[in-house]
Amino acid sequence: MANKLLMTPGPTMVPERVLKAMARQPIHHRTRDFGEIFNSMNVKLQEIFGTKNYVLTFPASGTGGMEAAVANLFRPSDKVLAVSIGVFGDRFAQIAKRFGVDVDMLSYEWGRSASPEDVVARLKERKYKGILITHNETSTGVINDIKSICKSIREVDSDILIVVDAVSSAGGVPVDVDANDIDVMITASQKALMTPPGLAFISVSERAWKSIETDPVSYYWDFNAAKKGLQKSIPDTPYTPAISLIVAQNEALSMIMEEGLENVFLRHQKIAAATQAALNSLGFELFADKSDSSPLITAVKAPDGFDVSRFLSLVDRQGVVLTGGQQHLKGKIFRIGHMGYINKEFLLRAFEAIEMAMVEMGFNIEKGISLKTIDETLV
Amino acid sequence: MANKLLMTPGPTMVPERVLKAMARQPIHHRTRDFGEIFNSMNVKLQEIFGTKNYVLTFPASGTGGMEAAVANLFRPSDKVLAVSIGVFGDRFAQIAKRFGVDVDMLSYEWGRSASPEDVVARLKERKYKGILITHNETSTGVINDIKSICKSIREVDSDILIVVDAVSSAGGVPVDVDANDIDVMITASQKALMTPPGLAFISVSERAWKSIETDPVSYYWDFNAAKKGLQKSIPDTPYTPAISLIVAQNEALSMIMEEGLENVFLRHQKIAAATQAALNSLGFELFADKSDSSPLITAVKAPDGFDVSRFLSLVDRQGVVLTGGQQHLKGKIFRIGHMGYINKEFLLRAFEAIEMAMVEMGFNIEKGISLKTIDETLV
Repeated sequence: MANKLLMTPGPTMVPERVLKAMARQPIHHRTRDFGEIFNSMNVKLQEIFGTKNYVLTFPASGTGGMEAAVANLFRPSDKVLAVSIGVFGDRFAQIAKRFGVDVDMLSYEWGRSASPEDVVARLKERKYKGILITHNETSTGVINDIKSICKSIREVDSDILIVVDAVSSAGGVPVDVDANDIDVMITASQKALMTPPGLAFISVSERAWKSIETDPVSYYWDFNAAKKGLQKSIPDTPYTPAISLIVAQNEALSMIMEEGLENVFLRHQKIAAATQAALNSLGFELFADKSDSSPLITAVKAPDGFDVSRFLSLVDRQGVVLTGGQQHLKGKIFRIGHMGYINKEFLLRAFEAIEMAMVEMGFNIEKGISLKTIDETLV
Repeated sequence: MANKLLMTPGPTMVPERVLKAMARQPIHHRTRDFGEIFNSMNVKLQEIFGTKNYVLTFPASGTGGMEAAVANLFRPSDKVLAVSIGVFGDRFAQIAKRFGVDVDMLSYEWGRSASPEDVVARLKERKYKGILITHNETSTGVINDIKSICKSIREVDSDILIVVDAVSSAGGVPVDVDANDIDVMITASQKALMTPPGLAFISVSERAWKSIETDPVSYYWDFNAAKKGLQKSIPDTPYTPAISLIVAQNEALSMIMEEGLENVFLRHQKIAAATQAALNSLGFELFADKSDSSPLITAVKAPDGFDVSRFLSLVDRQGVVLTGGQQHLKGKIFRIGHMGYINKEFLLRAFEAIEMAMVEMGFNIEKGISLKTIDETLV
């Protein structure tokens, strides 16, 4: 089976070098060999998070990281404001509700970003223990201005726990945990961090540690137990970690560091701009406003009569995987992921497939126009 | 860094063929390609479990599987009997306590197995919603007679939910979920199933489904959501699965099926017998009674004055990883794992290292005696 090019909201492409590291025979997790790799990964994660806080690792996907945050920070009936701009904002709220947390919603029409003013207005209405917010919403291709939102929150509430789902953003755009005074930030291996799914990473601030009980309702997500592991001279985890994924993730982070974090961010911006320009050249419109549109994933409006499902399967036949819309956006948008291990070559390959699908569907496009646009944009 | 031979309680050695499968570029999890692999894995898991029940997969290690069982089956104040013969029996009880479950303990001195009579006596004293029991206890090298225990339980209670931690047993010895009327059985990828850690597998009986709420306290461990994924025409999972590990696990299960499950079980018995004989030839005594000793891992008594920690590091210097005792058994035992991808060649390599370490430590042994013993036992 030939490898397909994944330009999805995740998992994303994994560099050969990372796959090779993952394919090593596992090492035992209570050894110096493992401790060194684990420590090396953690130091690099801190750099990507922009934090001096501990970054905890769980054998779980991003949703598990979100659940871990809720299980440790909140107890039943705690009041929490959940800011939702799409599927993953809704999911975060749902997770909190499962734990009996008293969740108020601040929901936006899908395709829009959250406004700092709205958040502040809600915080003035009621005292909350925490606020849950998505950094980058893959379901709509919208990125929140997390810096402005955090700044506004802190102007009205210095105690509230700011919990950010950065699952699809960390490593592709700045998250600046400490500068933004974010208490708990969650990300995962399979998006901008260029590693297969199965690892969740969570930073925890001093403010957050103060409200974390020693015996949370969950044993698996226990932050204190994970912290104790990191404080050992040879760091480890409270139970068997996903060893091979950690070895792979460490290698992927080394690649990011070698390229330079600023260069990685710049590359994401350039690729996003080229993606948008290429789409425009083919006559497509973006789903999100230009000012809100994500440098990590682009959501595209399906023109009238455009059969998204047929389009996706034609593109797939060319070996390129894109995704459609979720829930009420099904059939109305398609999405092109461009985070992590993404470059001009992949983008050209994706648009070649997109053009071929459009021709097959009877669209009268100027063959090669999007490739030319990419070529001109990415100089 | 050269690969070390892992003869630990887990992770265990992973065959090259499995590592190669894992090193493939990830495929997207909402595609037919993934659905086919996922389905193929699930069918083989059912065979290994000996069940027609759904086997659910979570991106988690074994401890996560145990937590998932508790989160779905029990509510605060439900009465549960936890049968513990070591570290993992205690852990299961601890997990249940975190969820507010009313846990009674039936604990045994470490090194002993649980007796069906004791279990029955406790079930007659109080009505329980569930019973938690470890199949194979890696901390002590003791295996419970799960068949007799389940049979005895059902003679006195036809409703009780039998929940079995088979993390280190499934795939190495028969577990026979349906024949033993086990309601929930948990295992993980990194032991007898020959795959790196990061996947938990859980079977759920009809009896168990009846007591599972649609909205358990956890979103991540939601059994109903996982079941819905399996019921789709192209099976998937409620959130991103650990794709590369699933591809690897599917390959490992194919290897088990090609060898034949009965042959795999026989190989484990033979290797265990050879391990015990080799240890005896060097003058070591087993920690567990012969009748209780596990075909998956052997715990060995440290003779008087035997420095376990020095022994382990000398063995490690030969490229072989064994483990010591946990908690109060630290310094008193060492453990040799022999589950999963284990063969005569690995066993010889391990005992060569053990002999070299003993010579270095000043023991007067007949050089090569354990290798000769292995050679004679494994004909």
